[in-house]
Amino acid sequence: MADVILVLNAGSSSLKFSVFDAQHAQLELILHGQIEGLYTSPRFRATDRHGAASSHEWGDGHQLGHQGAIEYLGGFLRDHGDGHQLKAVGHRVVHGGQRFTGPVIATPEVLAELDGLSPLAPLHQPHNLKPIRILAQLRPDLPQVACFDTTFHRTQTEIAQAYALPASITGRGVQRYGFHGLSYEYVASVLPDIAPAAAAGRTVVAHLGNGASMCAMVAGKSVASTMGFTAVDGLPMGTRCGSLDPGVLLYLLDELKMDSQTIADLIYKGSGLLGMSGISGDMRVLLDSEDPRARFAIDVYTYRIGRELGSPAAAMQGLDAVVLTAGIGEHAVAIRERIVRDAAWLGAELDEDANRAGGPLISRASSKVPVWVVPTNEELMIARHTRAIA
Amino acid sequence: MADVILVLNAGSSSLKFSVFDAQHAQLELILHGQIEGLYTSPRFRATDRHGAASSHEWGDGHQLGHQGAIEYLGGFLRDHGDGHQLKAVGHRVVHGGQRFTGPVIATPEVLAELDGLSPLAPLHQPHNLKPIRILAQLRPDLPQVACFDTTFHRTQTEIAQAYALPASITGRGVQRYGFHGLSYEYVASVLPDIAPAAAAGRTVVAHLGNGASMCAMVAGKSVASTMGFTAVDGLPMGTRCGSLDPGVLLYLLDELKMDSQTIADLIYKGSGLLGMSGISGDMRVLLDSEDPRARFAIDVYTYRIGRELGSPAAAMQGLDAVVLTAGIGEHAVAIRERIVRDAAWLGAELDEDANRAGGPLISRASSKVPVWVVPTNEELMIARHTRAIA
Repeated sequence: MADVILVLNAGSSSLKFSVFDAQHAQLELILHGQIEGLYTSPRFRATDRHGAASSHEWGDGHQLGHQGAIEYLGGFLRDHGDGHQLKAVGHRVVHGGQRFTGPVIATPEVLAELDGLSPLAPLHQPHNLKPIRILAQLRPDLPQVACFDTTFHRTQTEIAQAYALPASITGRGVQRYGFHGLSYEYVASVLPDIAPAAAAGRTVVAHLGNGASMCAMVAGKSVASTMGFTAVDGLPMGTRCGSLDPGVLLYLLDELKMDSQTIADLIYKGSGLLGMSGISGDMRVLLDSEDPRARFAIDVYTYRIGRELGSPAAAMQGLDAVVLTAGIGEHAVAIRERIVRDAAWLGAELDEDANRAGGPLISRASSKVPVWVVPTNEELMIARHTRAIA
Repeated sequence: MADVILVLNAGSSSLKFSVFDAQHAQLELILHGQIEGLYTSPRFRATDRHGAASSHEWGDGHQLGHQGAIEYLGGFLRDHGDGHQLKAVGHRVVHGGQRFTGPVIATPEVLAELDGLSPLAPLHQPHNLKPIRILAQLRPDLPQVACFDTTFHRTQTEIAQAYALPASITGRGVQRYGFHGLSYEYVASVLPDIAPAAAAGRTVVAHLGNGASMCAMVAGKSVASTMGFTAVDGLPMGTRCGSLDPGVLLYLLDELKMDSQTIADLIYKGSGLLGMSGISGDMRVLLDSEDPRARFAIDVYTYRIGRELGSPAAAMQGLDAVVLTAGIGEHAVAIRERIVRDAAWLGAELDEDANRAGGPLISRASSKVPVWVVPTNEELMIARHTRAIA
């Protein structure tokens, strides 16, 4: 019976899972999938390592919930687990606050502390914690590990993390946290094998997926990030606005009479590529579209990446390499091309053939700043942490 | 009888004025001053070209408003005007919206349009417009010119001005306007004589006064600015926060139960150098302080300047020169030194002696990117515009 590690990533209406075979030094993904529509129209999908797919639908209006989803998943794993032994569960938790600087065993005391961080990430933190509590009831023997999106950035200086606000506000934990930390940590972990100079030097890693941010890394440690207090700041994203003048929020409140919930929906779900184009938040759809609004959304998206790249470069007093990762970074050839061309002033030179081929190196040999494409793997990072400390 | 031009800059509780002798090609400042404490404890101060000072106080509780202030100023100018003939009045108006791309005669139609922009700048625009209306009543014969903080930036591309928001919001005029335009325009107007290469090239001008922003100029035209929809975005300032994750405002609303007025007071009046230090928003006070909070505020202030400098440089695909202006830029030797040192990665090399001496060139001859100190003069810019089109 081989040991396996389960990785869970719970949102408000979905539960994503991955199962890793932990019998060898190299963790191997053997099953992954998700349960979506938890409180409205739940549906289960899973794919095993051989590509065999399973699915189940409960029908509209079925209130499966997080508890039901975990119970169903438990049953599925027992039935389809080939006798594997579940050794530990790793959870993606958005916020580790100021205290947590790495993954941690989710004891009741830790959970209480993580609950206290929910005001900092009310849309995600409570949902991330639910499965931990549920499993602690169902399987109190099972080690559970919380892995955070914020902890990778805690190597940043106090100054880099500060907002220019009074202590009455910053004392409550209002600072730049940075997110996508598990993705950056994974990239940093594989970079020494792929690009040793980039791993050792001053490198901007751009995580461009549904969410998007950049991290300035010196020798693999975060020194700056484009995301701040929340994951809505910085670069425009699929449906999130990125950087926004705080005066715009006052305008939405005072002049358009929006309430905070409406504003949250607008800036998290109705902005970014979707908001600008009015078509889709999916870059693939926009790249295939001939609508001028799609082109405009792509233009603004890439322009802001080009502008923002100067800021992490400044944080490091220069730039030795750029790494592109996540959905758009790994797959959108045309976007990569524009990003590299906009970074010409920093010394980046595109190799068009290599870019079309997917890299990993997509810049020319003469490029002063090499540009790499490195696939990320947040689930594997969580599984590694979980095995290491469970 | 020499023609003179009056320049007015009206705020919610103050009226600043400058009088320029317009008989020669070169406009000459012959009188300037302000009336402060309107509606509470009004006091008048004026200084003439010989340094002679006049003052008057009305006492606490005297309800001298904008109307009374202008009437008093009119009387003062008649009594102390040496028979000068008031030819025209130029007004600083914060917002010219999308339509106005330069100064304009303040006709009733123009005023109505400018009123319509008040929701975009509710703290300033209505007060800027009051003296125009008052003078139109008192002296309907007198040409009045509105000069805007925004118009210099209207050369920016639509993409540079865009937020990643849906058309339902951007269609109401929510875009990056940029401010300090009269200061940047003045600097651009004198730069060809001081630093021809900087005037012709890719130059970042940093206006560092009570407000603070940067403008990326290519051949004297604005292509990007750190300020956005309002003058609170971008760099930290004396009492304003600069860039702030929109998620922080949601936190202030939802978790700290602040209303929009309290938030506006916080981010406009209680943040920046004052908020971070808890001591003062005046850089001179902080530089003289040994309090670690003063040092922290200065550290964050200069760090953000260093970070932000990368963004306008990216907008221009590189940097040929930096110009520092306004109170801190013109006078704070220690801040200038840190800014230039933080720009070393872009090719700037400080000349310490030249910096102590105040420039105008404060970088070494070997500096790839020359750094200049150029005093700004927004009032003179307004006077020039006013003479040109009145």
